[in-house]
Amino acid sequence: MRSARVSRRGLLGGGGVAVVGVAGGFAAGRAGAGESEATTVESYAFRGEHQAGIVTPAQDRLHFAALDVTTDSREELVALLQEWTEAAERMTRGEDAGPEGAVGGSYLLPPDDTGEAIGLPASGLTVTFGLGPGLFRDAGGRDRFGIADRQPEALRDLPHFPGDALDPRRSGGDLCIQACAQDPQVAVHAVRNLVRIAFGRVSVRWSQLGFGRTSTTSTSQDTPRNLFGFKDGTANVKAEEPEALAEHVWVGPDDDPAAGWLAGGSYLAARRINMTIEVWDRQPLGDQEAFIGRTKGTGAPLSGGSEHTEPDFEMPGSNDTTVIAPDAHVRVVHPDMHSGARMLRRGYNFVDGSNDLGGLDAGLFFIAFVRDPRTGFIPVQNAMAKQDSLMEYLRFTGSALFAVPPGVGEGEYVGQTLLG
Amino acid sequence: MRSARVSRRGLLGGGGVAVVGVAGGFAAGRAGAGESEATTVESYAFRGEHQAGIVTPAQDRLHFAALDVTTDSREELVALLQEWTEAAERMTRGEDAGPEGAVGGSYLLPPDDTGEAIGLPASGLTVTFGLGPGLFRDAGGRDRFGIADRQPEALRDLPHFPGDALDPRRSGGDLCIQACAQDPQVAVHAVRNLVRIAFGRVSVRWSQLGFGRTSTTSTSQDTPRNLFGFKDGTANVKAEEPEALAEHVWVGPDDDPAAGWLAGGSYLAARRINMTIEVWDRQPLGDQEAFIGRTKGTGAPLSGGSEHTEPDFEMPGSNDTTVIAPDAHVRVVHPDMHSGARMLRRGYNFVDGSNDLGGLDAGLFFIAFVRDPRTGFIPVQNAMAKQDSLMEYLRFTGSALFAVPPGVGEGEYVGQTLLG
Repeated sequence: MRSARVSRRGLLGGGGVAVVGVAGGFAAGRAGAGESEATTVESYAFRGEHQAGIVTPAQDRLHFAALDVTTDSREELVALLQEWTEAAERMTRGEDAGPEGAVGGSYLLPPDDTGEAIGLPASGLTVTFGLGPGLFRDAGGRDRFGIADRQPEALRDLPHFPGDALDPRRSGGDLCIQACAQDPQVAVHAVRNLVRIAFGRVSVRWSQLGFGRTSTTSTSQDTPRNLFGFKDGTANVKAEEPEALAEHVWVGPDDDPAAGWLAGGSYLAARRINMTIEVWDRQPLGDQEAFIGRTKGTGAPLSGGSEHTEPDFEMPGSNDTTVIAPDAHVRVVHPDMHSGARMLRRGYNFVDGSNDLGGLDAGLFFIAFVRDPRTGFIPVQNAMAKQDSLMEYLRFTGSALFAVPPGVGEGEYVGQTLLG
Repeated sequence: MRSARVSRRGLLGGGGVAVVGVAGGFAAGRAGAGESEATTVESYAFRGEHQAGIVTPAQDRLHFAALDVTTDSREELVALLQEWTEAAERMTRGEDAGPEGAVGGSYLLPPDDTGEAIGLPASGLTVTFGLGPGLFRDAGGRDRFGIADRQPEALRDLPHFPGDALDPRRSGGDLCIQACAQDPQVAVHAVRNLVRIAFGRVSVRWSQLGFGRTSTTSTSQDTPRNLFGFKDGTANVKAEEPEALAEHVWVGPDDDPAAGWLAGGSYLAARRINMTIEVWDRQPLGDQEAFIGRTKGTGAPLSGGSEHTEPDFEMPGSNDTTVIAPDAHVRVVHPDMHSGARMLRRGYNFVDGSNDLGGLDAGLFFIAFVRDPRTGFIPVQNAMAKQDSLMEYLRFTGSALFAVPPGVGEGEYVGQTLLG
C-alpha cells in the first residue's frame, strides 16, 4: 500500500508537496476490521480516464452540493469549469484552492483560499463534477449554452416515484459537486472554495453533508452500516471488477449517438431518503430482518451462509412462503429481478438535526453511479417503491440526476468533451 | 499513552471487552501535527469526580441534543436518569446500549440497541448530561418535580443579546445530551439510543451535529480552525490547569446555597452562531486579521510573537490607534477585559446544508463550560455583541443554558445529588 501525509502548502511554506496517486485509477486504502477511522490518509489523482470519487474506495465523509448556473454565457461556463478543474486538482493534492493560498497573497486582497483546511492533509479528497438536465435546457426550454442537441437521452429529471415526497429545495440542479474525504472539514473546504470561485456564475441550490459511508466500493473495505443498523452495500459493484464497471457503470462510446462526449463517464442518481428510525427501532428484530432479508448481525441472507453468500430466493420457509419474503428488500432490488442491472452505490448516512415531530431528521443520502439510469436505476427504484416492505419506514425527500463527464488528462478541463 | 481498540460486544460475542480509562480523569489522546484523524481510539471512563466530555481532550465530532421532559412524574424522571447513566456507561465502553445488544435478544422483541455501531470501537465517546431551567420550573412556572427550591440562581434562560436572531426551535430545553466521539456514527448512535430509551418521557426539542472541533482542551492538542479559517481556542482553559479549572469551570460547594448539589459540576452555554462566510470570504486578508486581532497563518497576535504569545493591547500602531484594534475579537473577549473571566470552550464547526439565499447554513456551534454564567459568560457575550467587529459576519440562531451535574461514582446516577 502506498500512502503519504500531504499537508497544505500554507503550512509547509511552499513547494515540496509529496503526492501519491495512481493516474487514471485509484490508490487503494484499507480500513481494517474495527477501524472506524482510516489510519492512512492518501491523496488520489484528480486526472485520469474516469473522474475520481466513483470507484475510489469510499471515504467516510461527504459534502454534496447542487448548483444552478446563473450566467447565460458559454464562455463564462467554460471558464468556470476550467477554474474548477485547476482548483479541484490542487485541493486533492492537499494544497490550497489557489496559487497564493490562504495567507500567501496581498493583505489588500481577499485570500484565494478560505483557510479552514490549513495544516490538514489531503485526507483522501476526491471531487467529482456532474451536469444536470437544466444545463442543456433551462426551465423555459432555452438552450443557453448551445448544447441542447448533445443532451443525453437518459439525462432527464427522474420520474415521480410512488412514495416520493420531494422537497424542491433538495432536488435538481444544473451542476453538482460531490466532495468526499476522510475529514469533513476537508470536504466542506473543497465545496466552499469551489462555490466561492463560481461567485456570480452559479448559486447553490442545495447541499448535503453525510458521514458513515454505506457502501464498499473496494473488496478491501468492510461493509459499513446504515441507520437501520444493517450492513449496506454488500453486493455493490467493486473497483476490482473492470468488466462489471464497463457493463454497469461507465457510459460506452456508442451508448447514445448524441452524447459521445459522455463516453467514459457515468450517471449519478442522488436520492435523499429519510428513515423513520424511531418507528423502525420499535420493530422486533425478527421483523427487521424479514424486511431486509438479511440477518442484522453478520448481514448473511436469511437463506443461510455468510455475508457474501448469494441469497436463495426459492428456499421454502414456513407458512407456504419463502425464507426470504416476496417483499424483502434484498429480493426486490436484486439484480436477478432486474435483468442483471447493478449499480455502483456510494451513499452516506445523514443526520440533519430534528424534524417537526421531534424525531431525528436522518436517513440515507443515496448515491448511485450507473451506465444508464433508464435501465440501471429507474426500474429498481420503481420496484422498490411498489413492493419493498422497507417503504413503510422511508420517505424520499430529495432527488436529482446528473451526467458525470469522463476524467480529464493534462491540460484538459472537466466537461471539455462537451463544451471544448 | 494508553490506548485500546474496543469493539461492540455484539461482534465479540459477549464478554472480554477491554476498557482503558482513568477513573475521574481522562486518558489523554494526542493528535500530532498534520493528523486530522486520531490514529488511536480510546475509551474514556464515564464515572468520575466530574462528568466526562468537559476536560476530555476534544474529540472531532459532536452530536448535541436538547430535550423536553413530557412526564410530570419525579419517579419517571429518576428512572430515566438511572437508565441513561447505565446506557451511557455501556456505550462509552464501546458496548451496545443495553445488555442484550443489537442482535442478542429475542427475535420477537425490538433489540435494545439500534445496531448502526456494531463493529465500531468506542471511538473516544463521551456523553455529558445537562439540566435546563425548565426542569425546575416549566413554562407555566410549575414545580413539576419538587426541585424548584434547588434551582441554581445562575440557571435562567440566557438574556437576549444584541444581534440575537434566535430560532425557538434551536433554543432551550429541559435536558441536554452532548455526545462527542472520533466517529460521528458513534456519537449519533449514542444520542439516538438515549432518546430511544427515553421514549414516552421526553421529546427531542432540537439537535445539532458538528465536525471539526474548534478548541483545544489539552496542551497536547493542536489548535484547530473555525470556518473563518482562523485558529480558534488558543487561550482556552486546559485540562492540565487544575487551578484554572477550579476557579473558572467547576462549581464550588459554596457557590450557591440552594444548589450545593451542583458542586463539582459546571454550566454549559450553547450558542449556534451562523457565519456569513460568503461575505467574509470577500474581505481582504488584512481586514480579516484586523477583525480577529491575530494572523491567519500562525494565529499569533498582531502585536507579535507566536500563537501562544500574550497579545499586547497597548502596542501603538499607525493612525493613532493600537496594533490590535479596539474592536478586534481577541481584545473584546480577552479575560483582561472581563476581570480575568475564562471559559472552557468546546465548540464545533457545522454545515447544515444551504440557506434560503443560496449560501451555506454554516458556522460555529459554540459550547462553553463555566463556573458561573453570570460572570463567566454573559458579560463576555454582551461585550462581543456590542463591540466586536466580527459581529457583522455573525448571526446567533440558537441559545441554551444547562447546569451540568457533577460526575457519578459506582452505583450512582447522573443528577442523583439533586433528585436522590
